[in-house]
Formats: sequence, structure tokens, C-alpha cells
Amino acid sequence: MTGIDVLVSEVGPRDGLQSIDSIMSLDAKKAWIAAEAAAGVREIEVGSFVPAHILPQLADTAEVVAYARTIPGLTVAVLVPNLKGAEAAIAAGAHKITLPVSVSETHSLKNVRRTHAQMLEATRAIAELVRAQPADQRPHFEAGLSTAFGCTIEGAIPEAQVARLGEQLMAAGADEVGLSDTSGYADPAAVKRLISTVRSAVGDAALTGLHLHNTRGLGLANALAGLDLGITTLDASLGGLGGCPFAPGASGNIVTEDLVFMLEAMGLKTGVDLDKLLAVRRIVQAALPGEDMYGFTPDAGLPLGFRRSTQTDRTAGSEAG
Amino acid sequence: MTGIDVLVSEVGPRDGLQSIDSIMSLDAKKAWIAAEAAAGVREIEVGSFVPAHILPQLADTAEVVAYARTIPGLTVAVLVPNLKGAEAAIAAGAHKITLPVSVSETHSLKNVRRTHAQMLEATRAIAELVRAQPADQRPHFEAGLSTAFGCTIEGAIPEAQVARLGEQLMAAGADEVGLSDTSGYADPAAVKRLISTVRSAVGDAALTGLHLHNTRGLGLANALAGLDLGITTLDASLGGLGGCPFAPGASGNIVTEDLVFMLEAMGLKTGVDLDKLLAVRRIVQAALPGEDMYGFTPDAGLPLGFRRSTQTDRTAGSEAG
Repeated sequence: MTGIDVLVSEVGPRDGLQSIDSIMSLDAKKAWIAAEAAAGVREIEVGSFVPAHILPQLADTAEVVAYARTIPGLTVAVLVPNLKGAEAAIAAGAHKITLPVSVSETHSLKNVRRTHAQMLEATRAIAELVRAQPADQRPHFEAGLSTAFGCTIEGAIPEAQVARLGEQLMAAGADEVGLSDTSGYADPAAVKRLISTVRSAVGDAALTGLHLHNTRGLGLANALAGLDLGITTLDASLGGLGGCPFAPGASGNIVTEDLVFMLEAMGLKTGVDLDKLLAVRRIVQAALPGEDMYGFTPDAGLPLGFRRSTQTDRTAGSEAG
Repeated sequence: MTGIDVLVSEVGPRDGLQSIDSIMSLDAKKAWIAAEAAAGVREIEVGSFVPAHILPQLADTAEVVAYARTIPGLTVAVLVPNLKGAEAAIAAGAHKITLPVSVSETHSLKNVRRTHAQMLEATRAIAELVRAQPADQRPHFEAGLSTAFGCTIEGAIPEAQVARLGEQLMAAGADEVGLSDTSGYADPAAVKRLISTVRSAVGDAALTGLHLHNTRGLGLANALAGLDLGITTLDASLGGLGGCPFAPGASGNIVTEDLVFMLEAMGLKTGVDLDKLLAVRRIVQAALPGEDMYGFTPDAGLPLGFRRSTQTDRTAGSEAG
């Protein structure tokens, strides 16, 4: 993360698009990804390698990955549900693959029809495949602990259970684990407790990222709690598009624009040019007429005299484009 | 604050109603205040003693205060713009009066046509009046530092300027000062810095409350930053009604429902029964047809198996009503 304090990982092209009925054209996806990368976003989850009949919105993920790889400096991330998805992701050239694993086994069974034992087996198989790649083509392999803060079917999830599954996923060969608030049940105290508990099982370096939802309006407060414990990667979705379609009532990623505003206002460098980021909304809105886009900062605009961390570069004329 | 960790101060009947065109009937105001107090909210800012031609929405404030005083255990707060307002507030029997003072002198001149010198003079006169009351009828007198985090006209406000004005207001006889993010410019780092700076000028005990807006979506994150520094009173508005009508683009108090959810989820006792609080929305919405109400928790509902701090009381049968 050269030159930045927090990596904002845009998940809209995956988590956003999979949650809406509209299908965005490949060209629009390319334009979105290009514009957001040009705004300084350094990691984008561009799609998911799931069967096209399940998520037709993401059927062109291989082509999106191929395009996104041509953007210098961009980490191209994808979601994979299983080994087959991981094979496709690696074939397409993804830099980072994330396998979501629900800590709630009920949710896992409902969502992907797999037990924890089966998910751990998939993790081992994917890890083996990843390790078999040449070093310069080896993707980073994250296991995402879904429903880590509670499940809409099971309710509260014991923190020890999250930590144990995290440990098992690391033992099965994941490079790192992430915490996902799939249900939007997290609160700042829970975020801190769970990070501490899971880290004591997997080590600090193996948990650096959070995937938070804004279901109950606490998304940025939860992000702040994560920052307090040294979290350095935060997922967000442009315009708050998306959420998990399999967890009823759990819509709404945190909004990239509001997150970047918060971080930059706090003096934390994201590398993102807020003005350019806000302009990306127009591309997405034009490609998804009728879809709701969220966010407070886009409506309110930036504070008068707001100091951007990217400003020095611009003044110095060192900014490309 | 017996039995609670954080005092949630409802400002909707003042800050919310003054910002919308609809005029709520006196009966509806009474029903709202009664229901919210019955839900466990212990302090409500019920109105403002400003001339009726300026804010006709609040013309019945004296009657609202008289009614609210009959609710056991409720602190009845009001806003006053000047000495005349304070006289009316004391005559009506308000328990707490807040004089907003804009740290941005430009904003002060535009908002109430008063310089800082004039506002300090008003503070002295109000403090004298307050002190002249019999001890058992003496209201608590807060000076609210508006535009403390920046101004839509002046832009950034030096933190030393906020601290200096806070010190002057305390010297002029205020019981305490509060920080108001009138413009919605605050961020969590600024909240922490400004609390520390102002406290070093006025003492820790003289700054215990924040009035935050959610203009850029950071309201709850800013509240969390305040809690980290021991803030114990947080203003909020049911359904996020309101904001400051004099600061363009600065609408939106933080939402009481989301704030209470965050605090209770964190294990901080507010004394508020969340289910009852959520039910109060129907009263307000029915009385304000066509007005927008905000909040995420009301839409999403409480998490499955959510543990309420008021639950023990209920199980023990000790809860009234």
C-alpha cells in the first residue's frame, strides 16, 4: 500500500451488481472500473465466478477481469464460490480471489448448500491450486468470514466460533481471512471484540480487512472501530449499491464516497481523488437507469475549503491524466 | 444520569420541526413527547422561544413546555436565541435552556444578526437571570457552539477560536458548552481534536455533549469518536427530521433510532426501549403526512435475538406501562 494509509476496496461491480435485477453491459462495467481506477481506487472486486444462470449480471466476469488487468496499478479481485470458480478466476488472471465462508452453517447450507467441512475442503483445494501457480501469477487468496457478526437465520454467532473457523481456514491454506458483516448486525464494540478474538487465533497479519454493510446505519462507525484496531482494508460500494441477496433485509454496502470522505477528512490517505470519485456516479447511474444510488456526501457535496490529500500532487502537476 | 451510560437528547420537536414547512399541532407534539418519554428518552428539546413570525412551527413552545413538565423524570429543554427568549423559557418552566452561539461570526451575523460581543453580552444577561431564580427552579444553562466544525460561509474554523469562544462563554456565566456540527463538516478525528482542545480551555466537566448532523453520513462515526472521549450526551432527532435551516445543505440530525440502536448494541445503557422508540415514528409520521423520515434501523428492524438493555426490567415485571 505504497503512499496510502487505508486501502478502499470497491466491491460495487460484484456485490452491487449481483444484488440488482438490471444487467450492466460489459462496456459500462469497463467504463466504471476505468473511471474509478483513474480516481485512485487501487483495488476493485470486478465480479464473481458463479454459474451464469445463478447470477446473469456477472456472467461476463472473465472478460471484465481481462480488461481490468490492463489498468496499471489496479488489483483485480473476484469472488469465487468453490474450486471451479477459483480455476476460472486463475485462468482469467485475477490478482485476488475471495472465497466467502458463512460462519453460520445454516446460512452456508442455504446460500451455497455446503457444510463447514465441505467449505474447508474447498479451501484446501483452492489453496493447492493457488500454490501450484508460478510465483508471478499466484493470486492472493482470502477466505471471507460471512455472517461473522450474526445471521438472519441463526441470530447471534459466538465469537469463539468465528475465531475457530478463521483458524481452520488459515490451516486449510488461505492467505488471510476477512470479516464480513453480511447481515448488518455489527456494532463498533462487536467489531473491536471480534477483530481481537479472531486475531488471537490467526495472528494480526492474517486479518486486515472488513466488509461492512450499512444496514442499520452503523457502517462508518463500524469502519472507524476497525481503523482503531489497525484495519487497513475496507470494502465499500459506489453509491451503496448492493448487499447480500441471500440475507433478507441485509442490503447496503457502506458507500464508497462517504467512506473516502471520512478517511480523507480524518487525514488518512486513500489515494482517491474525491472529486473524480463523485463524478464516477454519473457513469454508473447512466448505465443503471432506475436503480437507487445512496450516499450522503454526494448529495451534500464536500465542505467549503475541504483539503484533499491528493491536492498536493495536483498542485505540483505530478498527477497523470 | 442514574442507571444510564449515555443520555440521548431528542431534539426533533425543536430542530426537526423548525426545519420543515408543515406545522405540527399542539396535540401531536404532546403525543410525540409523551410517547418518546414513555419509551425511556429522558431529555427532549421541545421547542424554541423565537418570535412566532420567524418560526411559526414553534409558536406554541410555552404550552409544549408546560405539558412536558408534567411528565415525571423528563428534562424539558428549549432553545433560546437571546435574553427575551430566556425570560420566556424560565417563565414557562424549562429545565434546560440552550443559547446557540455561532463560532463563525459571519454565520452569527447572518443567522441572528449578532456579533460575538453581543452574544457574550446576551450570555451574561441570561446567566444573571438564571442565577436570580430560586435554586429549585433554576434551569441548566448551556451555550451551544454552532458551526464548531466549520461553516458553510467561512469554511474551516480554527480550533483555537472555538476554544476561546467556549472559554468566554463559560466566563460569561454559562453552566456548560456544547459542540454543534451545524454544517455537517465534522469527522471523527476532528471531533476528538476539538473536544480535547475545548476541554483544555473550559475543563472536562464543562463539555459533555455533542450535537451532530449526518449531512455526509458520518454522524454515528462522529458520535463514536465523542464516546471515546467520554461524551455522555448526544443530541438526535427521531426519523432524522430537521437540521439547521440557515446553513444551506446542512440538513439532517443524526437519527435517534439508529443512535440508540448503536449505543444499546455496544452495551451502553440509554434507558430507551428500542421497540417503543420505533413505534413513536408512526405518531410523528401520521402528524406530518408527506414529510420524509429517515433512519436505517427502522427499515431493517432489530437483529434477530437482539438483546435489549431494558429487557431485564421487563422480564422482572418492573417496567411501568
